[in-house]
Amino acid sequence: MTTVNANFGKLAASYLFVDIAERVRRYSADNPDNEVIRLGIGDVTRPLPPAAIAALHRAADEMADPGTFRGYGPEQGYGFLRETIVARDFTPRGVAITAEEVFVSDGSKCDVANFQELFAATQRVAVPDPVYPVYVDSNVMAGRTGAFRDGRYDGLVYISGTRDNGFVPPPPSEPVDLLYLCFPNNPTGATATHGQLQSYVRYALETGALILFDAAYAEFIRDKSLPRSIYEIEGAEKCAVEFRSFSKTAGFTGLRCAYTVVPDAITLPDGTGETRSLRSMWLRRQSTKFNGASYPIQLAAAAVYGEEGSRQLRELSDYYLANAAIIRDGFTQLGFTVTGGLNAPYIWVETGKPSWEFFDEILRRAAVVTTPGAGFGPSGEGFIRVSAFNDREKVEEAIERIVRAFR
Amino acid sequence: MTTVNANFGKLAASYLFVDIAERVRRYSADNPDNEVIRLGIGDVTRPLPPAAIAALHRAADEMADPGTFRGYGPEQGYGFLRETIVARDFTPRGVAITAEEVFVSDGSKCDVANFQELFAATQRVAVPDPVYPVYVDSNVMAGRTGAFRDGRYDGLVYISGTRDNGFVPPPPSEPVDLLYLCFPNNPTGATATHGQLQSYVRYALETGALILFDAAYAEFIRDKSLPRSIYEIEGAEKCAVEFRSFSKTAGFTGLRCAYTVVPDAITLPDGTGETRSLRSMWLRRQSTKFNGASYPIQLAAAAVYGEEGSRQLRELSDYYLANAAIIRDGFTQLGFTVTGGLNAPYIWVETGKPSWEFFDEILRRAAVVTTPGAGFGPSGEGFIRVSAFNDREKVEEAIERIVRAFR
Repeated sequence: MTTVNANFGKLAASYLFVDIAERVRRYSADNPDNEVIRLGIGDVTRPLPPAAIAALHRAADEMADPGTFRGYGPEQGYGFLRETIVARDFTPRGVAITAEEVFVSDGSKCDVANFQELFAATQRVAVPDPVYPVYVDSNVMAGRTGAFRDGRYDGLVYISGTRDNGFVPPPPSEPVDLLYLCFPNNPTGATATHGQLQSYVRYALETGALILFDAAYAEFIRDKSLPRSIYEIEGAEKCAVEFRSFSKTAGFTGLRCAYTVVPDAITLPDGTGETRSLRSMWLRRQSTKFNGASYPIQLAAAAVYGEEGSRQLRELSDYYLANAAIIRDGFTQLGFTVTGGLNAPYIWVETGKPSWEFFDEILRRAAVVTTPGAGFGPSGEGFIRVSAFNDREKVEEAIERIVRAFR
Repeated sequence: MTTVNANFGKLAASYLFVDIAERVRRYSADNPDNEVIRLGIGDVTRPLPPAAIAALHRAADEMADPGTFRGYGPEQGYGFLRETIVARDFTPRGVAITAEEVFVSDGSKCDVANFQELFAATQRVAVPDPVYPVYVDSNVMAGRTGAFRDGRYDGLVYISGTRDNGFVPPPPSEPVDLLYLCFPNNPTGATATHGQLQSYVRYALETGALILFDAAYAEFIRDKSLPRSIYEIEGAEKCAVEFRSFSKTAGFTGLRCAYTVVPDAITLPDGTGETRSLRSMWLRRQSTKFNGASYPIQLAAAAVYGEEGSRQLRELSDYYLANAAIIRDGFTQLGFTVTGGLNAPYIWVETGKPSWEFFDEILRRAAVVTTPGAGFGPSGEGFIRVSAFNDREKVEEAIERIVRAFR
């Protein structure tokens, strides 16, 4: 008799965005004349950089011509893109990553969720709270947790981002095997300094943990003193995997392209006396279960590293960062304490009341949709996440309305 | 201490295409004047249908315009594509699949490999021999097998496709939980009749097994009496998941698009007393670990169902089927027994000697690359797979050379 994976039964129902949608629907039904502005879901709204558009057209032309048509590409991505990534994202920052260590994919969500397959089912996992739910849910499905209780799973170690630690939690106080980190952070927008990343790397090297570092928002870092990559920290190449994405920075959420760095230096025991290269394992995983990212999309990704493309990429992230500044200023002006929004596209607002209550209040009084922090974990209670991903005039109007309503 | 998944250590090294590449490299080094023709790897060579190209250009234009730009799409695919799939691939064949049961993805390899995550780790799995290696390897990684011995994994049930059963093996003689099937078959090119598919469905319904039906090559079926979908068999909607692909039929190996059908009627126990909808589980899996296929690629996939597009799609598969006929004729003329190539793009040639020996002989005497059947499992020993995916003039020359050499 076919029997399904019982771990799926442990998954807490994912009602966050369903709940939000339902409350917005009700509000709109009751207030048909009030146009709702969405600063909730973190999805880009601006068109693709022209360099990426030109690359998409060029790829389409190539695919129409027998002489330039491309079938299956390498599972780990085309050399032209992997080499460009190394030359532009790592070499200039003094990081000695090679193209062989870079794996191009169709999304960081996929990579972050799939990467846990490489580890024993018994591994002890630490995640931040508040947390991007994919780190948690993928490990629940794999059986690395117990039951869900009071917003947390038994068996997981949570490190809490709080106002006191500036939303950069210290490393776990106990040994863990896998440690998920995300900087610039989703949902808080917090960034980690060189010293803070150093403390994680030191923890990992000392305790034998592996860091899974989600740097999907690295492109938004403007402060030159902040590291963009965990590999800017000495020793990280021995204990950290890094996930990067074109989604938010190049506007690729609809195109799908990301990459993951798995350093050659990481070799780990498999519990049977054998030691394995993590890079070789990921290569085997990807070769078996993935067929490479779409060629036109890879060509478009490479294009945003070109001279024109990288200027346009910068403009695009500047645009969202200017939105973030408007949001920060608005809430600050009203006397709220805010984090993020400086080197990150999210603003984390301390609400002084339960997240959902404040969410409802903003919706009712300003017709603006945000995301209740409690949806990201118990430590998110009392906060809302405001996303800078929208068009300028919408953001301006949303903040004007909020300032008017809450002044 | 981080410990990796020890099941990866059971994976047999995947040397098939590496071995082939090495032998071809040596041959070319020794015979620099002989142009090698590749009828080995099953990858398309013809340009995309013009309707798909036009859609790619249109999507690029849309992504350049703030009014039509698209960010994240639905994880299960855009409604326009899912509804078209139902209307064109199922409704005309009397199959009552709905758009809610269709999940669009970036490739059948991914879906086929990931689907096993939905099942208990203790499930007993049956696979064909010869076999598309992804069915096996994904289950090895998940711990559903023992050691690799003499070309097979302990703990798996193999059903052998042989000359005697026309490469359509009977259902397993013992109960299993998951049964992988592939028709038109890779590597043999064999197709299953209505009656043969019926016997699998009957087996599944009687023993409580689930069929994972890989129909990636369904578009090549020309014989109107042959089913294209397992859902043409009564009761299959209660016991079968079907995987379909745009890769070979529309030339999408470089673009990446496929779909999987998970019928609503399938509910299964999870071993703790709960019963779950398989469709809901796959939706949860895809929502957690996947972010949808690329929008331009989905638009291109929908385009091949249009009036122009479907004519072009037909021409494309006709082209490869005409190649297949040339290959079949050539080997038949030389007195070899062949299967496939009629409603499938692969021709399975009985070599009368070990696969690798014949592979070497064809390479040496005709400078043509094939795939040794033994690479697909012990039952493939004594066969080679010849792929129809190449340009017409290459196929014609390859067969002329083979006929000249072996006459």
